[in-house]
Amino acid sequence: MITVQAPDGAPEVGPGDDLAALVADLFDLADGDVVTVTSKVVSKAEGRVRPGTRDDALPDETRRVVARRGPTTIVRTSHGLTLAAAGIDASNVAPGTVVLLPEDPDASARAIRESLLARTGRNVGVLVTDTAGRAWREGQVDIAIGAAGLRVIVDLAGSVDAHGNELAVTAPAVADELAGAAELAQGKLTARPFALVRGRDDLVLPAGEHGPGAAALVRPDGADLFGYGAREAVVRALRGGEQDRAAFGAPAEPDELVEAIREVLPGATVEAAAGSVVVAGGDVRTLSGLAFAFGWRPVDAVDDAPGGDGLRFRPATP
Amino acid sequence: MITVQAPDGAPEVGPGDDLAALVADLFDLADGDVVTVTSKVVSKAEGRVRPGTRDDALPDETRRVVARRGPTTIVRTSHGLTLAAAGIDASNVAPGTVVLLPEDPDASARAIRESLLARTGRNVGVLVTDTAGRAWREGQVDIAIGAAGLRVIVDLAGSVDAHGNELAVTAPAVADELAGAAELAQGKLTARPFALVRGRDDLVLPAGEHGPGAAALVRPDGADLFGYGAREAVVRALRGGEQDRAAFGAPAEPDELVEAIREVLPGATVEAAAGSVVVAGGDVRTLSGLAFAFGWRPVDAVDDAPGGDGLRFRPATP
Repeated sequence: MITVQAPDGAPEVGPGDDLAALVADLFDLADGDVVTVTSKVVSKAEGRVRPGTRDDALPDETRRVVARRGPTTIVRTSHGLTLAAAGIDASNVAPGTVVLLPEDPDASARAIRESLLARTGRNVGVLVTDTAGRAWREGQVDIAIGAAGLRVIVDLAGSVDAHGNELAVTAPAVADELAGAAELAQGKLTARPFALVRGRDDLVLPAGEHGPGAAALVRPDGADLFGYGAREAVVRALRGGEQDRAAFGAPAEPDELVEAIREVLPGATVEAAAGSVVVAGGDVRTLSGLAFAFGWRPVDAVDDAPGGDGLRFRPATP
Repeated sequence: MITVQAPDGAPEVGPGDDLAALVADLFDLADGDVVTVTSKVVSKAEGRVRPGTRDDALPDETRRVVARRGPTTIVRTSHGLTLAAAGIDASNVAPGTVVLLPEDPDASARAIRESLLARTGRNVGVLVTDTAGRAWREGQVDIAIGAAGLRVIVDLAGSVDAHGNELAVTAPAVADELAGAAELAQGKLTARPFALVRGRDDLVLPAGEHGPGAAALVRPDGADLFGYGAREAVVRALRGGEQDRAAFGAPAEPDELVEAIREVLPGATVEAAAGSVVVAGGDVRTLSGLAFAFGWRPVDAVDDAPGGDGLRFRPATP
């Protein structure tokens, strides 16, 4: 049995407030509990509130733009989170100001956990939660952007189910599911920034051991397949420019590039050999755009390609 | 307070089994409860098991390929779900067979809900859950792929927080958060396909009213910004072909296309006028690829463009 509580009655939080003291007042903690705190109150306590609009604050909070359409700008933040408007929030804050995400939410979670241990003697896990959209689904869910003392992913690779099948790639992101469960008890309109989830003490690490943090839930830039929105990917690839390359990921296998070139330029002659791909026919700009997206670059002209004069491509490894 | 229970002891499910009977045996249901059932047991009860591997079954379960890298193929299914390997599952099933997703998970949820009402007299919400990866985050979470009798998204647009700010775009996808909460109680290795979530009876609709189903959580094809992986987007745009156009979305505003062309081809002369965009300079293939991604197409040559002979583009609205 899992229980989730999010009581009313938390006071308005301001700079310097001791969140652990508020949590300790609200809940009768037990070892193995998971305490969730919204990023908003963490930010308020840490003074991450500034005057102005979300648009004013966006450039400083953006590491790179992932996609843009109409009024929506989806960016990757300094934390590696991919969020609309960099997670800058204009709700539940004084009008005319916005709340930025905590600078280091894992550190925020660790500080709260340490303070709760000192204050109550209880060993709990702590999550800092935020609200995030999803690429392909309507609505938002709460996710864990900071974590301390918690296994955030349960890696079942190598485990065997009751039928003897190996669970090859199953790795429940339990910290995100805990954040979502907390949101169900909190709602968005009432002042319930704290929640307590009880019943998964198997996920809570020993006192003093903080674990990998929510940073472990962030897929590294270039390791995902969706580093750019579909339109932005086309613009970036056709424009070129080294600073845009990383989000397309590590260089593809030669076969993958060959297949892409054949699909786009059926009239070209393409050959992979000795870590390079040689193409005859097909215009240079189209070829270069394709190669860019696959992490390759043109390196030299060759005059002995099977289809006539050609261009040689190699992986763009730094 | 929200509680989540997922008892051990559910029997192995086979074709034709009555899932509502199993649920009614496991739980002492109350009005307003939410019952979750994994898609796997729904599929088993509906006979959606077939011999072979995931790769064998994939083509029939794929509406279109979204992204591919190495052994990973992410597709959009007939349900509109974007899932690795179309959600085909080789775990918790007899070796040598795979489980396909239910054909119509919302209908499956409705049937279970109706049967639970008839059997127990209780008005509950029912979710069919599945495990899904995320574009930018490690690990998987459970989501709702079928729903009956439940508000799946709580649309707070127009609501006002305690500070008087309007919550413009906040719409918690509560059905997905409920699915994730259920997973926390179920785990992946034990036979706990059913869970009961109590404490959000405000989300459960009156008996006989099934609501929009989990289909309402699917962002329509072309309405998301990530209809293709970054590499696939470049290949699709440079290849052209009408069947690939929809996933890039509705035609962009003229200004958005103009900005993209200026970014990629700084030497071109670009002008938007009367619902068309005229470009002089820049090679046709690059321009056409860009226009494709933005939902536009070349329509005719013009000889009076400001920068010399040019090409006119118009939105590719059917």
